[in-house]
Amino acid sequence: MRVIGGLPINLKLVIEGEEEVGSVSLERFLRERRKELDADAIVVSDTSMPAPDQPALCYALRGILYTQIEVTGPTRDLHSGEFGGSVMNPANALCAIIAALKDGDGRITVPGFYDRVQPLPAGEREKLNRVLDEADFIRETGSPIPWGEKGYTTTERIWARPTLDVNGMWSGYTGEGSKTVLPSFAAAKVSMRLVPDQDPADLFPRFESYVKRLAPPAVTVQVLDLHGAMPFLTNPDHPLLRDAWRALERAWTKPPVLMREGGSIPVMKTFQDTHNLPCILMGFGLADDQVHAPNEKFSLTSFHGGTKSAAYLYEELARGR
Amino acid sequence: MRVIGGLPINLKLVIEGEEEVGSVSLERFLRERRKELDADAIVVSDTSMPAPDQPALCYALRGILYTQIEVTGPTRDLHSGEFGGSVMNPANALCAIIAALKDGDGRITVPGFYDRVQPLPAGEREKLNRVLDEADFIRETGSPIPWGEKGYTTTERIWARPTLDVNGMWSGYTGEGSKTVLPSFAAAKVSMRLVPDQDPADLFPRFESYVKRLAPPAVTVQVLDLHGAMPFLTNPDHPLLRDAWRALERAWTKPPVLMREGGSIPVMKTFQDTHNLPCILMGFGLADDQVHAPNEKFSLTSFHGGTKSAAYLYEELARGR
Repeated sequence: MRVIGGLPINLKLVIEGEEEVGSVSLERFLRERRKELDADAIVVSDTSMPAPDQPALCYALRGILYTQIEVTGPTRDLHSGEFGGSVMNPANALCAIIAALKDGDGRITVPGFYDRVQPLPAGEREKLNRVLDEADFIRETGSPIPWGEKGYTTTERIWARPTLDVNGMWSGYTGEGSKTVLPSFAAAKVSMRLVPDQDPADLFPRFESYVKRLAPPAVTVQVLDLHGAMPFLTNPDHPLLRDAWRALERAWTKPPVLMREGGSIPVMKTFQDTHNLPCILMGFGLADDQVHAPNEKFSLTSFHGGTKSAAYLYEELARGR
Repeated sequence: MRVIGGLPINLKLVIEGEEEVGSVSLERFLRERRKELDADAIVVSDTSMPAPDQPALCYALRGILYTQIEVTGPTRDLHSGEFGGSVMNPANALCAIIAALKDGDGRITVPGFYDRVQPLPAGEREKLNRVLDEADFIRETGSPIPWGEKGYTTTERIWARPTLDVNGMWSGYTGEGSKTVLPSFAAAKVSMRLVPDQDPADLFPRFESYVKRLAPPAVTVQVLDLHGAMPFLTNPDHPLLRDAWRALERAWTKPPVLMREGGSIPVMKTFQDTHNLPCILMGFGLADDQVHAPNEKFSLTSFHGGTKSAAYLYEELARGR
């Protein structure tokens, strides 16, 4: 606006503040304002770059199914000496259930889990595997070594394969020192990242009945569906993505790359459903941003590069019209 | 003292306030006061009765080895979408370790764990199995069904077989709703109840190296020895136990029974080591006392019956001298 005296295109901003709690109101809002929010394209800047100087366009995101497994054994906490050995310990039972959810090759054992997973075409696989410095990526985690599903690279594991992770778990006494309690209750938050064409609504009942089947009869198990989001995939060759590509070329020194991303942006699928518009995922996050952890940050190089990229994008989009 | 004008024997009271944190000072205290605390017998009233009207003498206790397993994966909490699938999740790893500590028959898989376990002689086994109403005992826990080591009754499982229980565990996000975090750290408190002649000092290194062997290479595992106590066994036919038996006969309506107990009273083994005196375990706890749980109580029938039993015991011990 400073340079050319005004915006070259018309912008509508939608701010989504519910993503981490399942975006329960967004779809209704978008449907109610369907007309008011009509547009030519959706632009979202919530994705990342493979390196601080490497701009990228993202064309695929993972979805998610986020569950909570709750195991109850005895109706109250018991003395582990008086009762230990006579009843099933719900924390031990929960561990047995969670351990059985993956096999030794890191594959998820929920029946039918992989039925709708689209394998990466060979050409795409090859291209994606050139984007990331995998050693750098793993070093950033501090994990001693990479680990994941057998037969796939780190890049494929995070961008194109589903996962199953414990996000939290708790049972019994968790303070300093020791308490000889046989807990009554144990729970874990377990989420799965999904890839096209997996659907959390299809997978939750399979997951629930499998977990219940794994549970020993001496405990009661409940599985809660905390939230879900569909995976997202868009055509990387769409003309609007080429506009974004040119904008990135102008804003940065290195030419951009095409990438997928492991996270979920549930609103993308919602936008597809309500507006059915081409989507540009042009983001500037970095692997060391400590997203969802203490000391989360956003780099100044990304801030300035992202600002420029957005300005050029508006120009390129205006030119294309 | 009210009835006969004085105590018929000389009493020395030792109050132990450190039991739940491993009794780190007691042994030194007892050794330093060895002479001052000399006696003819040790009496401890920290055991229980099989029913509110069923007095009992206890002649065996389980020991304990209380550990903490700490698993570290990445050096910080990671975004489960960005990184999920590429590194080992320490909570999943911890569950796999804990699940592997027992087999499908409820047997503990730590190599050499059962080497020093003394099997119950057939006669003793038969007698013990008549003491407890097992259905009542399990009903009290609220557990849907009994569960434990294959080939043993509930009585044998709690009184004469070792156990392995998770007493507490924690990892990642444990609040309301969901957080898509791949935790950096997971831990569990895992304790084993031991039976004669198992020794926590002998078992800890076996446990530690086994847990480390079970851990996948993509995580770092530490095992802490939080505390240990030796199992305890005394001769139920000792003359002093017969004095106690007569005291119980006089204080209660039903004749007493001999029993073992699942809990640990580490001071018994310490007393054996420092004083080497006969031990009388004459206790009045009940299965529904909610020991180590909210609303712990001590029944009035046990309080009054226990008071009488103690008075008669002093008389019987005086008579025996």
